[in-house]
Amino acid sequence: MKKLVNEPKAFVAEMLEGIALANEKTLKYVPEYNLIMRADAPNTNKVSVLQGSGSGHEPAHVLLVGKGMLDGACPGDVFAAPPVDYVLESTKLLASPKGVLHIVNNYTGDRMAFDMARELAEAEGLKVATLMVDDDVAVKDSTHTVGRRGVAGNFFVIKAVGAAAEQGRKLEELVELGQRVNGVTRTMGIALTSCTPPAKGSPLFELGDGEMEVGVGIHGEPGRKRKAVEPANAIADELLDAVVEDLPFKKGDKVALMVNGLGGTPIAELYVVYGHAHTRLTQAGIKVERSYVGEYCTSLDMAGCSITLVRLDDELTSLLDAPGEMGMRIL
Amino acid sequence: MKKLVNEPKAFVAEMLEGIALANEKTLKYVPEYNLIMRADAPNTNKVSVLQGSGSGHEPAHVLLVGKGMLDGACPGDVFAAPPVDYVLESTKLLASPKGVLHIVNNYTGDRMAFDMARELAEAEGLKVATLMVDDDVAVKDSTHTVGRRGVAGNFFVIKAVGAAAEQGRKLEELVELGQRVNGVTRTMGIALTSCTPPAKGSPLFELGDGEMEVGVGIHGEPGRKRKAVEPANAIADELLDAVVEDLPFKKGDKVALMVNGLGGTPIAELYVVYGHAHTRLTQAGIKVERSYVGEYCTSLDMAGCSITLVRLDDELTSLLDAPGEMGMRIL
Repeated sequence: MKKLVNEPKAFVAEMLEGIALANEKTLKYVPEYNLIMRADAPNTNKVSVLQGSGSGHEPAHVLLVGKGMLDGACPGDVFAAPPVDYVLESTKLLASPKGVLHIVNNYTGDRMAFDMARELAEAEGLKVATLMVDDDVAVKDSTHTVGRRGVAGNFFVIKAVGAAAEQGRKLEELVELGQRVNGVTRTMGIALTSCTPPAKGSPLFELGDGEMEVGVGIHGEPGRKRKAVEPANAIADELLDAVVEDLPFKKGDKVALMVNGLGGTPIAELYVVYGHAHTRLTQAGIKVERSYVGEYCTSLDMAGCSITLVRLDDELTSLLDAPGEMGMRIL
Repeated sequence: MKKLVNEPKAFVAEMLEGIALANEKTLKYVPEYNLIMRADAPNTNKVSVLQGSGSGHEPAHVLLVGKGMLDGACPGDVFAAPPVDYVLESTKLLASPKGVLHIVNNYTGDRMAFDMARELAEAEGLKVATLMVDDDVAVKDSTHTVGRRGVAGNFFVIKAVGAAAEQGRKLEELVELGQRVNGVTRTMGIALTSCTPPAKGSPLFELGDGEMEVGVGIHGEPGRKRKAVEPANAIADELLDAVVEDLPFKKGDKVALMVNGLGGTPIAELYVVYGHAHTRLTQAGIKVERSYVGEYCTSLDMAGCSITLVRLDDELTSLLDAPGEMGMRIL
């Protein structure tokens, strides 16, 4: 295993500590609950927005905390749902009279943890609502899921809901908005390689030298099929076709197009995929209004990418364009 | 080779096309010279800033084009200096009465191309100056270099000089500023794996399963030594010690700390390294005022990282904080 790690069991805690140190003025780290929260949270004039999920998908979700985005994220260990008490205590630390919104990617473990934490928080008098994300079109059910999985499209739900929360919208309105964003967001991914969790020290699944996994999950779960590696354009076509046909996206639609790297793929390659996908959409009469290329939801060091499309309307475009901050910056 | 590529020879052109499509309103692509330039360049009220170098280091340099950063970048093929005519024609397209500044990372091929292009441009009456970047402390000379190599610290030179150019500073002042930034910037990197150029299709150099290359160059050039892979903290210590001792950085200094990923390493691991480096600097009485964690100057799919320190003063901090735009965005 060739990784920048110390004791594998300390990996998540050390990453969170590093994130907090790189954002000393804006983020706060509560080690007891793996919680990264805005330093100025909770803001009692707005709904607090919290996400959990496993670690290993960075920047999702701990690096998406900031003004106009998440108020907090309390991940579990690598690829493991957060324990119920992490979610409960994080919810209490973020409690606002306007309520706390849980954004949950659809995985069985995460749903259970968030459902239980919500019940316990409500029993203590807190106002909590849940918003489910399930944008992955690859498979109907999977090894970790009943129903579709929540993957990179999660970013758009957070961005839109985070901006709307900042505007002071009510909890019920945010749930409705988030469901609407999730409803027009579709993703599919492909793995060129497996990934290696630090504590395991070896690849999570086997993938032959000449093979790729089409429709892979972000924990290496099987997708639709395994086949011989193809050129970038053929891969982009296969992902795009699956995504476009699912909603379906139609001629005249305006969209946001995301090409998300899974962790081990250089951004240069992502732009090759992006260029072909953008051109294909334009040829189909679908207008790419906003572009997102880079790492948004990764699977440790997995090589590969996913394509996400979001059907835009004026309100959604304006929420995506609203000011936002997150723990990971370039400039 | 498992990469998102089509015909390897078309890799750079397809990447540049993708970058242009993802930035339709702000960037312009001139395929004849591999040039990515600001759509509003040249601005005759400011010096134009141009960089070249090889491809395969993205976001350096083509994704660093934007307001307050580079006005243009004209890379060569993967790990190859741009041909003289790319630099000459790009210089002419960016010509401004205030002059054109060439920022050149110190590699023999790049220096030759930029020196010749500068002479030819001057013969045509253009005003051109050259700024050299050589922040890599690893080796004095290397396989591709007389003198130190220019690596990730290049980002800070571009950011400061780009912001100052936007303020209308003169060509000579920008050279002086850039030399000053380069003079207080130090970097060293480590490779956990080799990297695979698309056209070669196999790793550029061999690195054993349990080995790492300390002080590696961004084209896989040998560094100081090869040794058994160590824990992240030991790696951070070795890089940091080399960087700190070189300037040297001293107690009381204020610094920017960058942990740069080399392309194949997930950002979660970069934050582990960042956290340790930040803590070590704090213990040494060196105050980390600004943090940069992510990919700034990569080596295709190489796993590994580099650490850069910049000694800050008020002027430099304010230039780093000035507004900037680049082709790669997250939000």
